Amino acid sequence: MKPVRFHELTRDESLRRLASVRVGRIVFTHQALPAIRPVHHVVDAGQVIIHGHPGAPLLSALDTVVAYEADGIGADDTIGWSVVVTGVARKIAAGEVPERYQDPWDDDEASYLIRIRPELVSGFGLPG
Amino acid sequence: MKPVRFHELTRDESLRRLASVRVGRIVFTHQALPAIRPVHHVVDAGQVIIHGHPGAPLLSALDTVVAYEADGIGADDTIGWSVVVTGVARKIAAGEVPERYQDPWDDDEASYLIRIRPELVSGFGLPG
Repeated sequence: MKPVRFHELTRDESLRRLASVRVGRIVFTHQALPAIRPVHHVVDAGQVIIHGHPGAPLLSALDTVVAYEADGIGADDTIGWSVVVTGVARKIAAGEVPERYQDPWDDDEASYLIRIRPELVSGFGLPG
Repeated sequence: MKPVRFHELTRDESLRRLASVRVGRIVFTHQALPAIRPVHHVVDAGQVIIHGHPGAPLLSALDTVVAYEADGIGADDTIGWSVVVTGVARKIAAGEVPERYQDPWDDDEASYLIRIRPELVSGFGLPG
């Protein structure tokens, strides 16, 4: 649902809002069904960086086009804004992990990082 | 990301948590790409009921298997819980709209309702 009072957000504003929160959701196909997983993210150099875990359904997302969504809940538990980026999910090689990437929530040594380079960026929200 | 401290939720608990919030996200395929839209929902008789709008990408979701996700953000802007239901999205005929369905956020006469009958229900979260 998208009430008319919402405005389209620019790409820059969309990425700024995405970077302002830690939780988002990756959308992909798993066993021919639509799948979604909430994950923690950071935005680094315009790319979305998230965690993957061995054996997880998220492996299905690698090297495919995925959507990544984050949103903010506004007053009265209603939608405040939403940003969706679409792009290919790639595993980050060990040598390519951004130095400034901090990982406060995960200590699984077998985990890996995934980056999504946004090809499409869309967002809407209350102006502000 | 799913830290080991999280517990799997039962189907009943998952649906209860889903019903405890108003905002969720429908996941579907649009123009051969994964798509996601935040929407407002209610849970009625075990079914998820959301709004559709004419001409919206969401039309692509009708009569297909979709995923519907809701989550709660916990302390420090991290994931608290998440529920995903998977099922076929069907348009609700005018005569089938639940009487007790209230629509506080939408006054678009051309809108319609979609129901998702959960075939698969999964959830995880902090116990409690």
